[in-house]
Amino acid sequence: MLYLLNLGCRSLAASELQLKAVNKCITRGDFMKLSITGGKFFEINADTTIYETLKANGMFLVSPCGGKGTCGKCQVKITSGGAHVKAYGKLTPEEREAGITLACQTSANSDIQIEIPEHSKLVLGGKIAISIFKDTAAYLKSYGTNIDPLAKRVSLVLPLPSIQDNIGDLQRLTHSLNDIAVPDMGITTVGITNTGITNMRFSHEFVSTLMETLREGGFNVTLSYSKTNNSVFDAISVYPTARPNGRYGLAIDIGTTTVVVYLVDLVSGTVIDIGSTYNSQTKFGDDVITRIVHATEGGGLADLRNTVVGDINTIVDVFKVKHTITSREVEAAVISGNTTMSHIFWGLNPASIREDPYIPTVNYYPLWHGSDARLAINPQAAVYTSPSVASYVGGDIVTGILASKMHLSPGIALFMDIGTNAEVAIGNDEWIMTAACSAGPCFEGGGIRFGMRATQGAIESMAIDPITLTPSVSVIGGGVPAGICGSGMIDAIVEFYKHGIINQKGVFNPAKTPLIREGVDGLEFLIYKADNPQRDIVLTTVDMENLIRAKAAIFAGVSLLLREAGLTLDVLEKVYVAGGFGNSLNVEKAVMFGMIPDLPQEKYVFLGNTSIIGAYLALMSDELRKELETIASRMTYIELSVVGGYMDEYMSAMFIPHTDLSKFPSAVAVLGL
Amino acid sequence: MLYLLNLGCRSLAASELQLKAVNKCITRGDFMKLSITGGKFFEINADTTIYETLKANGMFLVSPCGGKGTCGKCQVKITSGGAHVKAYGKLTPEEREAGITLACQTSANSDIQIEIPEHSKLVLGGKIAISIFKDTAAYLKSYGTNIDPLAKRVSLVLPLPSIQDNIGDLQRLTHSLNDIAVPDMGITTVGITNTGITNMRFSHEFVSTLMETLREGGFNVTLSYSKTNNSVFDAISVYPTARPNGRYGLAIDIGTTTVVVYLVDLVSGTVIDIGSTYNSQTKFGDDVITRIVHATEGGGLADLRNTVVGDINTIVDVFKVKHTITSREVEAAVISGNTTMSHIFWGLNPASIREDPYIPTVNYYPLWHGSDARLAINPQAAVYTSPSVASYVGGDIVTGILASKMHLSPGIALFMDIGTNAEVAIGNDEWIMTAACSAGPCFEGGGIRFGMRATQGAIESMAIDPITLTPSVSVIGGGVPAGICGSGMIDAIVEFYKHGIINQKGVFNPAKTPLIREGVDGLEFLIYKADNPQRDIVLTTVDMENLIRAKAAIFAGVSLLLREAGLTLDVLEKVYVAGGFGNSLNVEKAVMFGMIPDLPQEKYVFLGNTSIIGAYLALMSDELRKELETIASRMTYIELSVVGGYMDEYMSAMFIPHTDLSKFPSAVAVLGL
Repeated sequence: MLYLLNLGCRSLAASELQLKAVNKCITRGDFMKLSITGGKFFEINADTTIYETLKANGMFLVSPCGGKGTCGKCQVKITSGGAHVKAYGKLTPEEREAGITLACQTSANSDIQIEIPEHSKLVLGGKIAISIFKDTAAYLKSYGTNIDPLAKRVSLVLPLPSIQDNIGDLQRLTHSLNDIAVPDMGITTVGITNTGITNMRFSHEFVSTLMETLREGGFNVTLSYSKTNNSVFDAISVYPTARPNGRYGLAIDIGTTTVVVYLVDLVSGTVIDIGSTYNSQTKFGDDVITRIVHATEGGGLADLRNTVVGDINTIVDVFKVKHTITSREVEAAVISGNTTMSHIFWGLNPASIREDPYIPTVNYYPLWHGSDARLAINPQAAVYTSPSVASYVGGDIVTGILASKMHLSPGIALFMDIGTNAEVAIGNDEWIMTAACSAGPCFEGGGIRFGMRATQGAIESMAIDPITLTPSVSVIGGGVPAGICGSGMIDAIVEFYKHGIINQKGVFNPAKTPLIREGVDGLEFLIYKADNPQRDIVLTTVDMENLIRAKAAIFAGVSLLLREAGLTLDVLEKVYVAGGFGNSLNVEKAVMFGMIPDLPQEKYVFLGNTSIIGAYLALMSDELRKELETIASRMTYIELSVVGGYMDEYMSAMFIPHTDLSKFPSAVAVLGL
Repeated sequence: MLYLLNLGCRSLAASELQLKAVNKCITRGDFMKLSITGGKFFEINADTTIYETLKANGMFLVSPCGGKGTCGKCQVKITSGGAHVKAYGKLTPEEREAGITLACQTSANSDIQIEIPEHSKLVLGGKIAISIFKDTAAYLKSYGTNIDPLAKRVSLVLPLPSIQDNIGDLQRLTHSLNDIAVPDMGITTVGITNTGITNMRFSHEFVSTLMETLREGGFNVTLSYSKTNNSVFDAISVYPTARPNGRYGLAIDIGTTTVVVYLVDLVSGTVIDIGSTYNSQTKFGDDVITRIVHATEGGGLADLRNTVVGDINTIVDVFKVKHTITSREVEAAVISGNTTMSHIFWGLNPASIREDPYIPTVNYYPLWHGSDARLAINPQAAVYTSPSVASYVGGDIVTGILASKMHLSPGIALFMDIGTNAEVAIGNDEWIMTAACSAGPCFEGGGIRFGMRATQGAIESMAIDPITLTPSVSVIGGGVPAGICGSGMIDAIVEFYKHGIINQKGVFNPAKTPLIREGVDGLEFLIYKADNPQRDIVLTTVDMENLIRAKAAIFAGVSLLLREAGLTLDVLEKVYVAGGFGNSLNVEKAVMFGMIPDLPQEKYVFLGNTSIIGAYLALMSDELRKELETIASRMTYIELSVVGGYMDEYMSAMFIPHTDLSKFPSAVAVLGL
């Protein structure tokens, strides 16, 4: 099954037209039939690869390299018919033997039948790591700010040139900009006075097409531009005639494990489409440290950069085809990621991030361009990067705090973002302190044998029958489970503990039930028995150790940060929880596990992916973009490894729920400790 | 004979070291002997082309394509020995038959002997189109301005980072910039206050290497930067440790026929080296109109751009090898050219320049970068372009006026730049009016059978014996003449007229002397009899017509501009003559020809190439760069074709010296009219 993005009716119509046009282009020559095992078939001709044919028919394969044959991801299996294979790329002899080929390197010689393995299918949308805010435009409005997007537009009617008025085209444009009173079409633009725009920079690329554009529009043009931090405006593109609409932006969350992209209509603030995918950098390592090591010691910075940019561009290319948008119309993007992800995205060497004293190259990023970013958008597009606080508290946390609004309220709140790593912040509208916990990626599936993200096929919750000790599971999307996600893991470990299947330290008691069996990693608990024993879902002793280590790191981080702030838990008015858990985290169980503070459930607010919603807010409002920088500058970073006492806190938290049971009164009550 | 640039002793030493290093690189494998007909020989190995071997030994061939085999210019003739030829490129079968090959595509199989045709030798320096100002730094000083070059430097000792002071590298750099009081090392920098530099833009490329550089220099660094028109600073490069010296700039004059490049030490203002070459665009047409037609109708804009950038880069590459300079150290360049040349240099479509109402895309150019310009210098280098006044009065005239200082004096002066076209300006320190004359390229050699620039081998002056009517010539550099340059042509036509060899209209009187003979273009005068009749130097009937048309256009332009200004000749206090003529123009003869106004000789000032000296001034001083823009904004362009009366003025000037002899009293006296 191939997951495609949901399309509204209007977009569907546009999309169909577009696909028709694409089909027309590729249907020269004699046609053959390309059948997909399971149903669909399409026409294919000898000049076109299987990859292109599928793409033109709305079926997208994973291809971070963009169909160049280098990433080896767009594998298909030829089950019948003849094919011409240009190159096999990274395929092993075994794979080739089995009929596997790269779709982007393969064309048909005859009618051909293929099978598309699940791992080749591009998964977009679904429940992966998106924000809980559905009406983003309304959420933007709740900040009391106007729509004032990163890429703005102004319509200009220039005086026609003559022998008497023979100034150059660029000067004619700047004179008109100086004269305008209300520059944006019906939309208030912050920072432009009635004296017009006098301080705009025009890149060489912008000027290169100016002559033709002015004349094409009869000197009636629309200029798109952005405002930099230096109070200088940057010209992006010029279009013939008035053209207030048709401008788009991207909000991009680059997580260590997942990448999420929102396609946004910059005029209305509507999120037109959402794409998300795994960050293909995971092939180089699960966490930021292994990525940094690969970038620096392995000299793999370029690989890592190309990989994640490829992931994003794959999504962006799908957006453009589906919604009939040109690259040029995508005029802005906001990047939100942790410090390492942001550095790698920009090709900045992250080496110093992991070397004492842990200094990133950039905290506050200049406004750079689409071409600098290598994004498949307008080369002059304004690309903003959320500022980071320190090497281990990045732009994703700053956008997260913006999205949580904790910086607006006098009440003290705790913010926790539990992703591949966990970052915490405490503060209010006056101060914010922040720290990073070395929690590792297990709640996103890393380091857990059958761990996966909260997506189709994941066990998201679990209960154990008190009598039979047999588990019952709830699977996202129903059907046979493929693995277990963060919330399912927490459910499981608490249930195990509650029923004596594990002890306080997470050690299995094999006498308790035959579902505890010997596995490759020592003892393991059988959660789901599959037809094929290879696909049995289990949680292992190693998994238990990793989960306890992760929760201990998070809880120690929160405890230490509170201590550094001179506060106790009871002052917290709100706890904002962000991360891939989404709505499915069971607070009560997380408290019983000892991962999050034992506070009344009503203080907890789940926000899902706050990084992407914060990126969206910054994309749509210069004021909120400025607020991001203010938040970053107000955040005080606490390096947990140097403040003292971290190991004590951590070791105390290495039990379920904790060595100090007074910290978990409700857990004590429920578990009857 | 191969003309190479003069080297001072210091540079020679550096240059020798460099060549040694280069030789070391290319001398792997077995050596063979490469002999040059006429004397020299070098070692060559099988892996290295003849082109590279010659270059490494300081012998440079013409190669606008940079040794890619596409321009077909670096021809050599193999006279003995075996060669491996990778490609023949544009060579004709006849040339191949004759043993001609492209040096960049040919390597040796055995000891080999080659002959280098004159046209393959890169001619740099010599007397071609350089400024008459030898001590440019002193001339700069005469403006009362400080050295404040386009690329500036500041040395910064950053505080070392620590866990407590963990801001990012870029922020650390900007904080130090904010704090500095006297930013440039011993050199006053205009426009920076004691509050430091607070408004600097950092490109993505700049930041990409920041991490390594800061650490390499122990956070003791030197930053180079430029100041844009928007009062924003642009970072160029950052070097480890203090590094006030080793920064260079280029002053570049792009003429329609010639290209001149000065390599300038930005610290002292010394011109380290001068290179000049023909503008290889001449293969697409002699004048700006044919170039525009080729760019637009032939779609050849990219060809034209690549060609002239190739010419410049050829010179720049020689500079770098000779003076042991890296690309990165060349941090600034100033471009001075006519409007069409500047547009083509930047790849801007010049189509609208020749279409009514004659509008260029840009008059005032933003400060762009080395990479935008495709120059073989620092990609972040600041590249400034002299502003133009109109489509046919370009940046070369604005730099020319800056160099002439006519804009500083209350006395009214006339400025004439006679190059491939001729532009004139009249004015003083309050106003300047300017116009372009359609003079054509004949004074630079275009359209004249044996025409050439004022360089080695050109007849620069001529006299005719009143009795025998035999000519005697003076040849630049002595020896056998290869052609005749502008001053020689004017000498010749005036001598012809004085001795009745031609009439007032330039028509030969064959009865006068047997030196007038029938040639392929009708009657012609034999100026120099060569051993090979093919190399006889003659001036033809067509040449006479072209010269008279050219001088008539120039004189009509001056007359009309004076009329438009409501002035007469006698108010002119000075006449500045710029152009390839250099010092060799004989004012008296030019007056007798009717090309320039009949004014006392002491009012004439010859300035040679003012475009290049003006570019130099703008490179070395932000104040003078600003002054260039002020000059351009003060210049009023008069379109001669629309003011009325041009054809009358032109037709009247189509005689020697003029139909109205009252305008040429001294000519009348000398010629006895």
